[in-house]
Amino acid sequence: KAWANAQLQQLLERRLPGHSLEAPFYLSEEVFQADMEYIFARHWIFVAVAPQVAEPGDYITVDVGQDSVLIVRDDDMNLKAFHNVCRHRGSRLCEEHQGSLGNIVCPYHQWTYDLDGNLIHADHMGETFLRDQHSLHKVHLRNLEGLLFICLADEPPQDFEDVAARMRPYLAPHKLNDCKVAAQVELIEEGNWKLTLENNRECYHCVGNHPELTISLYEHGFGAQPGPQNAEGIAQFEQTVKDSHCRWEAMGLPSARIEELDTLITGFRTQRLPLDRAGESQTMSTEVACKKLLGDFTDKSLGGLSFWTQPNSWHHFMSDHVVSFSVIPLSAGRTLVRTTWCVHKDAVEGVDYDVPTLTAVWNATNDQDRRLVEASHAGVSSRAYRPGPYSPFTESLVEAFSNWYVSRMRAGVGGAR
Amino acid sequence: KAWANAQLQQLLERRLPGHSLEAPFYLSEEVFQADMEYIFARHWIFVAVAPQVAEPGDYITVDVGQDSVLIVRDDDMNLKAFHNVCRHRGSRLCEEHQGSLGNIVCPYHQWTYDLDGNLIHADHMGETFLRDQHSLHKVHLRNLEGLLFICLADEPPQDFEDVAARMRPYLAPHKLNDCKVAAQVELIEEGNWKLTLENNRECYHCVGNHPELTISLYEHGFGAQPGPQNAEGIAQFEQTVKDSHCRWEAMGLPSARIEELDTLITGFRTQRLPLDRAGESQTMSTEVACKKLLGDFTDKSLGGLSFWTQPNSWHHFMSDHVVSFSVIPLSAGRTLVRTTWCVHKDAVEGVDYDVPTLTAVWNATNDQDRRLVEASHAGVSSRAYRPGPYSPFTESLVEAFSNWYVSRMRAGVGGAR
Amino acid sequence: KAWANAQLQQLLERRLPGHSLEAPFYLSEEVFQADMEYIFARHWIFVAVAPQVAEPGDYITVDVGQDSVLIVRDDDMNLKAFHNVCRHRGSRLCEEHQGSLGNIVCPYHQWTYDLDGNLIHADHMGETFLRDQHSLHKVHLRNLEGLLFICLADEPPQDFEDVAARMRPYLAPHKLNDCKVAAQVELIEEGNWKLTLENNRECYHCVGNHPELTISLYEHGFGAQPGPQNAEGIAQFEQTVKDSHCRWEAMGLPSARIEELDTLITGFRTQRLPLDRAGESQTMSTEVACKKLLGDFTDKSLGGLSFWTQPNSWHHFMSDHVVSFSVIPLSAGRTLVRTTWCVHKDAVEGVDYDVPTLTAVWNATNDQDRRLVEASHAGVSSRAYRPGPYSPFTESLVEAFSNWYVSRMRAGVGGAR
Ligand code: FES
Ligand code: FES
Ligand code: FES
Ligand SMILES: [Fe+3]
Ligand SMILES: [Fe+3]
Ligand SMILES: [Fe+3]
Repeated sequence: KAWANAQLQQLLERRLPGHSLEAPFYLSEEVFQADMEYIFARHWIFVAVAPQVAEPGDYITVDVGQDSVLIVRDDDMNLKAFHNVCRHRGSRLCEEHQGSLGNIVCPYHQWTYDLDGNLIHADHMGETFLRDQHSLHKVHLRNLEGLLFICLADEPPQDFEDVAARMRPYLAPHKLNDCKVAAQVELIEEGNWKLTLENNRECYHCVGNHPELTISLYEHGFGAQPGPQNAEGIAQFEQTVKDSHCRWEAMGLPSARIEELDTLITGFRTQRLPLDRAGESQTMSTEVACKKLLGDFTDKSLGGLSFWTQPNSWHHFMSDHVVSFSVIPLSAGRTLVRTTWCVHKDAVEGVDYDVPTLTAVWNATNDQDRRLVEASHAGVSSRAYRPGPYSPFTESLVEAFSNWYVSRMRAGVGGAR
Repeated sequence: KAWANAQLQQLLERRLPGHSLEAPFYLSEEVFQADMEYIFARHWIFVAVAPQVAEPGDYITVDVGQDSVLIVRDDDMNLKAFHNVCRHRGSRLCEEHQGSLGNIVCPYHQWTYDLDGNLIHADHMGETFLRDQHSLHKVHLRNLEGLLFICLADEPPQDFEDVAARMRPYLAPHKLNDCKVAAQVELIEEGNWKLTLENNRECYHCVGNHPELTISLYEHGFGAQPGPQNAEGIAQFEQTVKDSHCRWEAMGLPSARIEELDTLITGFRTQRLPLDRAGESQTMSTEVACKKLLGDFTDKSLGGLSFWTQPNSWHHFMSDHVVSFSVIPLSAGRTLVRTTWCVHKDAVEGVDYDVPTLTAVWNATNDQDRRLVEASHAGVSSRAYRPGPYSPFTESLVEAFSNWYVSRMRAGVGGAR
Repeated sequence: KAWANAQLQQLLERRLPGHSLEAPFYLSEEVFQADMEYIFARHWIFVAVAPQVAEPGDYITVDVGQDSVLIVRDDDMNLKAFHNVCRHRGSRLCEEHQGSLGNIVCPYHQWTYDLDGNLIHADHMGETFLRDQHSLHKVHLRNLEGLLFICLADEPPQDFEDVAARMRPYLAPHKLNDCKVAAQVELIEEGNWKLTLENNRECYHCVGNHPELTISLYEHGFGAQPGPQNAEGIAQFEQTVKDSHCRWEAMGLPSARIEELDTLITGFRTQRLPLDRAGESQTMSTEVACKKLLGDFTDKSLGGLSFWTQPNSWHHFMSDHVVSFSVIPLSAGRTLVRTTWCVHKDAVEGVDYDVPTLTAVWNATNDQDRRLVEASHAGVSSRAYRPGPYSPFTESLVEAFSNWYVSRMRAGVGGAR
């Protein structure tokens, strides 16, 4: 392990700014283990939305690497997170992805824990056995306006509270806590998770690959090399953004861009952008997919509020629905992308919305991105692959992701927290 | 490898008595390799029952790790075991799990061996080729009253003869050598083989998980924390055992418990316990599953004679059938459990017995245990897993297994045989 | 890696001449990586036949280890080979096994390369971006009378030109460049690639395993221990060969054997042998499978011209068709065998030939060899496996393969090219 760390440190040292990473970052088993340790076990990871655990006793389990985490809503409506591991002989406690429970009863020998993780019953353990030394191991959990983040470290990055304070005004009006899950899809990509993230952080590939997504997205929304041929288009788009921001801010919807992707430990970015055509939602028609709007909204044209977090999520909040993406590495060459669509909890399926209309754009887009990620993973496996240059106009957020990743890995491998 | 051994030695040194093992014992590839070398290649491994090779020329092949062993009955009714590997270019000789043969003919270039393993024919090898230096490699084999054990080491543990001498009086009356195989089932458990064994060595989990098995098993048969609420029940059970032992011993059936699970290299344990209700057999009705009783038995109520061996088997001998379990590790996280049910060789299927009735209890029980083993394996993979305390009342045989395992691994890693 | 090389060097040092290799050569992950580096990335590898890329713009992709190579025919009918990897962020360029293209357009961000590998278009890269520093990486390619060999090394073995010069007179009359592919079959063998090659380099196993192949092959064509029982047969066969060679040489078909399997870096061997019975082709009837003969042939009885190359191919050229075999290691225990049958490009399917008749013998033979390779791989995995003696009469070409392999690995591990 010391040896692997030395190798990794060298790789990190010789990182070429403005270029994609060297092949071992995508392929090596050792780097993957380091990613799981230094990135995924030490940062705030987006894993679920609060509507997945809406009622007292509702639980979900989420896997991050070898760890299974149990998230449960207690009778006082608080959310708690525990390692899903019995303190007796280590059995998984809950084997399902979701369900409902009163106490937490281990299936093996029925040790029983309350929803605070206290061991309240264990047979045959003798008089000297100390129950209070066998509580469940807790996991840090935050509910950011309906987005659930966990941190597996003992001491999580403290800047999350700051990030939360800055993001709440943007997210709160959409009232995700008052939503329900309309659809959730898990997609496996045969590629490294960083290729998934790099793919997410640019739209250079959108014109050539995403016919459905680009119906609602403005062509100039994600950067371009300026020139005489597109000067007018860019100016027009910037005016549209300015006008929209004026209107939304007046409605109490903060819209100003925040850029902190590689300037914080809990790196993030947000931006509210107008949508094209009907301009209501990221759908094939660009009209809302759900007639019952979120929260107290009455205006359908709120554009798309995007929220990206390092290392593993992005979200689009619209007037009618929220779509959230959680990326979980499964191995160096295999990644899970879990997509969740939420609508107002009182919306009625078949009346207010239907699932195929709601999910069409992102199901198609996800599958296109999967193929791109897989082609990239296959390509960087070649002996001929060399880090290539990022476009300064269309790939600056990819560069921000790589910067953040390299700096957090340096902190990890160097022994910092 | 030296490095891996040093790591392993440390793990073995810091083993906490009375607690489950540390996670690497269940997960690490290095420990798995050491398990295969120090445990499975150096001890007596239960692999089959004699009725699987009943007639001259009958053979079976059994896999232990990367090794395939050919067990064959020769024309004088002796059982022989060989490595299933040709001395020419190393081809597997027999590719099927069972069959019948005259000589052993390699499928590749037809080198031919007799049933003593002598090379008796090889084409085109020239005048100077020495056939007698190319006999098959032998494997040590013992037939303990119908239970077949092999040892892959050059010098097998010598205490087996002792164990055999002590067990023969218990096993002989059931005449397993005169049985036939009524059913054999292979089950894959996605978990480490030691979790399979630990699961087998306690019934703490039976009440909560084995509704079928606990029909015939007395609740107090496997330990309990004594207290006012169960004092009477325990006393009653102990009296039942005492009475049964008196009756069985008088019939010539030794019944006294022998405890040698962690006191011998060839660790074992035996015990004949009464069964509940009708009290005849481990079936759903607790009545015999086969009308034709084993050997010369006329009494159906002989309880269950259990025989556990380290590292990989357990067996229940009843008046009407024998059920045997052989555990074979496939990888650190994958284990084969092969269950074999034998009845008297003259019993007629459809008349004396039917397979679903015979196998119902253990097929259900095996599947329940599989789920528990898999939940344990998933759980101990978590970063939150720590060795937990064994119950002093219900998990002492688990502790005996762990003790035996740790002591045999220490011997192996320390260079002793 | 230094450590792995030291281990490997020891293994290579203690190689026992006249015997099969030690087990790690077939099983170890480290040896497999060294095989891919020292053998497959540094020698001429047979990957395809020219008819697979017959027209301008036709391309195929072939995988060798982690590398994908794009072979394309340009508008001037030249064949070019490139690493199938975009110079931007490394995406695979062509994801299909074959197709047709004008320029090479990356699916990710549409960087566009011409058929010389020059980057001719890339959006948004800015004014200072240098297109001419982002050409595709070239791969060495040779077309030897229709057989396509690539070399992944910067400096390929120079003796290929020599080999080509010696082989052209043998191969040219069959005019493979003017053929079409009638059938191509990919077979996966669960065994090490060297077992596949060793299997190919002897017919000791043919009598016992290849009922279809041995219809057309003379029994004495591949060596035998001489003795009174076969003296006449051998003499007869040798006379047949001599007569045939006279006839073929007179027709302008070189037939003399060339043996260079372990005497050149680009080791090879060729031999034109008469076929048995009707004597026309390697078919079930031994008659031609295609009525339209190759090139300008009018005589159906041209025997079989065989051409073996180290490390990964063999070919049989007959009067009516050519069958070619390309072996590609997939992992230490998994190998791809791609078999391609070619007939005259003007032959009409259903009229001149049908695919089942053309492919019957080698499809059956391949599958039999697959089973033998898999039985060997399973066997050499046993702890009992020891290198066994090659027959001096029937396995001398196996020995030549092992010699070549060991000597090339010594060169690689020793730092020579
Ligand atoms: S492992 Fe949970 S109660 Fe035993
Ligand atoms: S490998 Fe058994 S005869 Fe050749
Ligand atoms: S990776 Fe090929 S154009 Fe971007
Ligand atoms: Fe995309
Ligand atoms: Fe059980
Ligand atoms: Fe063959």
